[in-house]
Amino acid sequence: MLYLFMISLLFLGSSNCMRIVDLTHEQSISTIFWPGNPQYNFTILFRNFSGSYWYESNSFSTAEHGGTHVDSPAHFYKGGWRTQQIPMEKLVGRGAIINVKQKASTNPDYRVSVADLIDYEDTYGRIPSGAVVIMNSGWSDKYPDPNAVFNTTNPSDPNTFHFPAWHEDAASWLINKRNINIIGVDTPSTDYGQSKTFPVHILLGKHNKIGVENVGFLDQIPESGSTVFVAVVKLRDGSGGPARVFAMVDEGKDQCTSGSNCQFYSASLLIAIILFVLTQKY
Amino acid sequence: MLYLFMISLLFLGSSNCMRIVDLTHEQSISTIFWPGNPQYNFTILFRNFSGSYWYESNSFSTAEHGGTHVDSPAHFYKGGWRTQQIPMEKLVGRGAIINVKQKASTNPDYRVSVADLIDYEDTYGRIPSGAVVIMNSGWSDKYPDPNAVFNTTNPSDPNTFHFPAWHEDAASWLINKRNINIIGVDTPSTDYGQSKTFPVHILLGKHNKIGVENVGFLDQIPESGSTVFVAVVKLRDGSGGPARVFAMVDEGKDQCTSGSNCQFYSASLLIAIILFVLTQKY
Repeated sequence: MLYLFMISLLFLGSSNCMRIVDLTHEQSISTIFWPGNPQYNFTILFRNFSGSYWYESNSFSTAEHGGTHVDSPAHFYKGGWRTQQIPMEKLVGRGAIINVKQKASTNPDYRVSVADLIDYEDTYGRIPSGAVVIMNSGWSDKYPDPNAVFNTTNPSDPNTFHFPAWHEDAASWLINKRNINIIGVDTPSTDYGQSKTFPVHILLGKHNKIGVENVGFLDQIPESGSTVFVAVVKLRDGSGGPARVFAMVDEGKDQCTSGSNCQFYSASLLIAIILFVLTQKY
Repeated sequence: MLYLFMISLLFLGSSNCMRIVDLTHEQSISTIFWPGNPQYNFTILFRNFSGSYWYESNSFSTAEHGGTHVDSPAHFYKGGWRTQQIPMEKLVGRGAIINVKQKASTNPDYRVSVADLIDYEDTYGRIPSGAVVIMNSGWSDKYPDPNAVFNTTNPSDPNTFHFPAWHEDAASWLINKRNINIIGVDTPSTDYGQSKTFPVHILLGKHNKIGVENVGFLDQIPESGSTVFVAVVKLRDGSGGPARVFAMVDEGKDQCTSGSNCQFYSASLLIAIILFVLTQKY
């Protein structure tokens, strides 16, 4: 029985069964931008039958920093990586989702603190090098209503904004003590609504770290146990850009339903059983 | 020793050591579009010091079907999924890279055949359900020179185009016999340059399958043994869109250099050794 226990343990640890979760708000005419940016525009070039077949084609224009998007280091730091210069491996990492929904619900100016990060590590273990650390303030549900997202009656005036984000001490701790890849928010800025000096943006740029803003649907992934991908459009000379953000979530075998990963798991289990039976002869 | 052999075998199969490879051409003023599309435009909104800190911000406009991009099912099939409707899990799959460089070098009108796919399976095994199957014709090196990519002296006239892509029989086989997720090319179209009827596009749309065009740098990944991600911008009502395409490549432990995956591998190996030592007592 020890054989079987050992094999089971190994497979439990190395199970490759994954669930994929989209964390991206749509790009559309409702896309939320910081005031002063040009609005999103979508143009239908063709949408009809073209001879014997249907044909659709469109174009669009957008500012880089709208909706679910990346802040490249160049955004707030001269000489920081522009979008196409960010190495692909810096756009991926283990997900650490910092839940401050309770705190943000009573204080919309809340900033995630070092204490929040230490609390997180007490529960889930050390935030690994290269992690993607995202605040979950519950703000995703408000998107794309500008009054709700900026939490103001005047979404064209940043002085009136009240939404949570990161404290610079926590951002600095993640960069210097944990060497994370990416800091994210489910709000429009990694600096909170009332910020005038944008210290988190500057820190990120200075250390060639990536920001990601307006991340959606964080309640659909666990606070630990995912890999997060921040697949930004590869804009030449961009200071950011729209991104497809998604997570691969490690699932226990009980959650396996379908797909090649699950087939891989089943095949592996079969091999383990065969090996177990064979080894009983010795 | 059988214990040790068994453990080694299991870990070899389940090694989680990964390399990530960007397969995306930059979006820029050099982006290649099919004739008739509006050109890419990039506007610097701000690039200077703003008080005490540097600040950069830009906007851009583009047709959906330019550079490394997705064809959504709606592109050539009425009622097919528009871009934001494609389930995230359909944008990922095991990579199968079909190398036709030799054939395309002597015949630029080459179309990947069912025989090519059977040859591939003879070497690498069955193409799995949900795969991302991409032709590697060597065309990536020609990007973004329009004369070279369209293989013509007149890149505004599609009648003069000569580049390789998929034969509709091979596309149909992949869809109906293998239930793949995505068919891709390193050229501007899943139908070859001389096509007038676009049967591959129509097949893809009809079966709610995804196309991906102008994929780059396929020589940097193995023909089998990767997972390919086609992270398209989540355009509402899009018939396609620019995509960040990349691959996670399974590496043997010899290729492990750094990063959390390698740490995971090392930790797993340590646990295996401890288990081995412990079990020797019984």
